[in-house]
Amino acid sequence: MAVYTDVSDEELQAFLSDYDLGELVAFKGIAEGVENSNFLLETERGPFILTLYEKRVNPADLPFFLNLMEHLAECGINCPLPVHDRDGRVLKQLAGRPAAIVTFLRGISVRRPKVAHCALIGRSLAELHKAAEGFGMHRVNTLSLQGWRALFDTFADKADLIAAGFSAELADELGVLEDAWPTNLPAGIIHGDLFPDNVFFLDARVSGIIDFYFACRDTLAYDLAICLNAWCFEHDVSFNVTKGRALIDGYSAVRPLSAAELNALPLLSRGAALRFLLTRAYDWLHTPQNALVRPKDPHEYRRKLRFHQSVRRAEDYGIAT
Amino acid sequence: MAVYTDVSDEELQAFLSDYDLGELVAFKGIAEGVENSNFLLETERGPFILTLYEKRVNPADLPFFLNLMEHLAECGINCPLPVHDRDGRVLKQLAGRPAAIVTFLRGISVRRPKVAHCALIGRSLAELHKAAEGFGMHRVNTLSLQGWRALFDTFADKADLIAAGFSAELADELGVLEDAWPTNLPAGIIHGDLFPDNVFFLDARVSGIIDFYFACRDTLAYDLAICLNAWCFEHDVSFNVTKGRALIDGYSAVRPLSAAELNALPLLSRGAALRFLLTRAYDWLHTPQNALVRPKDPHEYRRKLRFHQSVRRAEDYGIAT
Repeated sequence: MAVYTDVSDEELQAFLSDYDLGELVAFKGIAEGVENSNFLLETERGPFILTLYEKRVNPADLPFFLNLMEHLAECGINCPLPVHDRDGRVLKQLAGRPAAIVTFLRGISVRRPKVAHCALIGRSLAELHKAAEGFGMHRVNTLSLQGWRALFDTFADKADLIAAGFSAELADELGVLEDAWPTNLPAGIIHGDLFPDNVFFLDARVSGIIDFYFACRDTLAYDLAICLNAWCFEHDVSFNVTKGRALIDGYSAVRPLSAAELNALPLLSRGAALRFLLTRAYDWLHTPQNALVRPKDPHEYRRKLRFHQSVRRAEDYGIAT
Repeated sequence: MAVYTDVSDEELQAFLSDYDLGELVAFKGIAEGVENSNFLLETERGPFILTLYEKRVNPADLPFFLNLMEHLAECGINCPLPVHDRDGRVLKQLAGRPAAIVTFLRGISVRRPKVAHCALIGRSLAELHKAAEGFGMHRVNTLSLQGWRALFDTFADKADLIAAGFSAELADELGVLEDAWPTNLPAGIIHGDLFPDNVFFLDARVSGIIDFYFACRDTLAYDLAICLNAWCFEHDVSFNVTKGRALIDGYSAVRPLSAAELNALPLLSRGAALRFLLTRAYDWLHTPQNALVRPKDPHEYRRKLRFHQSVRRAEDYGIAT
């Protein structure tokens, strides 16, 4: 839930005068994304989303994110299409912040994905990976192995406030991953944050993929490992092997996985679990107790990490052998 | 800014199955109103607003609010029209809370109202008062004179944390109003909270009046006094007499004000300023320092109150004599 920046009607009207979007007919802050301020912007041309980029996004990365969305949309991926102003620009300024208008995507996020959703998202992820092959820009993953160590170091001395022994547990896992992290698997542009709240479904298809603000160049199968974590566990944090199989089969149907990629899945899934565990632990320790927006409980990903630690073979994720 | 309650896609689909609204096509939490959780709900039939009523609203009052909106909408007032389910009900339950769907109103709120907006809102307020004449339900104003005293008593000992001498200032003003508050002026249904963020404009007309959750039976001219406070001061908290005249003239063109009502305006405006000063001071003292949603600064209404205290004649508000 967001909307951090207030935009006055006068600032907005002046901003919109740069675009060919017709008259403004409605404007409402929406609770979408946690990093930025998002608004539903309805004009004579239809509904759009206006995003103001807040502090957590590096302005230097914005051309990458916006150009990526434009590239993917042009390749047929259902992602927001940045809208150009009359001078052809998509990245602008509003209320003292970088700002962009993108198309509005219909559809509904699912809270508890079913097997069919996992199959669809596996396919969509592979389509996204393939569509991004022709994208020419580069962005390093700041939340990969080196980033995890740097992030952990900022709160290693406080991690035990979350659970006894938690700091040692994280240090051990980081050590394991630093020794064994695969570096020679197929790489490309990954979404990096493809959680159910970043996907819309409509009429039994994926109608929208949003929030590309963690997209970067990294190991493609790592993106699939993020989805295994985000889509295939039940609310009691037990892994649903049928969902895992549906996700991986959906992905493989579009972009077949190599034996090396399949064999790396347990390790990549540990890394993905650790990545979200670290950011959630950080947010947990740095959010005031009485803040109105509660950070997500890090224990969910602690339990997911433990599941992946127990996995010995890729088959445990549901892969048919 | 709100959205306190999370609604899952499954709960929502089950809820919508009671209505003839067609398939759901989009659903987003919106930052509108501060008392309740509001969602943009788009179905095949178009956009709607779904409201979940949170703790600050007394569920026993909801039939009054919803029936009032329906009555006003039927009388041609541009306010949200509650949507009936197949059994004819408008007040339902969702996610453990009272809930209702209303129509979506187009238009934009203005941050800095101009003279023309004040004229339009004066006219709309009078039209609302006249349209409500035939409304049969009753609700006492819990935030009138007796309510102010009760609210003040809850924080009288802490008020000086806001400003030195603030508690005595509030006590003195309450005493003055308790002695002089007019009780024999024309009464009817008032909106009670007609601030610029509760009004939408489109094509130089009032396209929407929302947030009826303070509506009640009270002195009609007191509602106008609330608008004088909410619409006719500049950002530096100086009173703009041209806006005051536009508001009062707009109102009078639809519902002429009696001499008694005009003469009472300075006192009613003091009461209106005190009402918002008290609730803002209460919220200021009861919101944690580091909460993400900051309460509104009570000093704005302290300065407005002082202006009204200095007013000797209704002419000072811009009334032509």
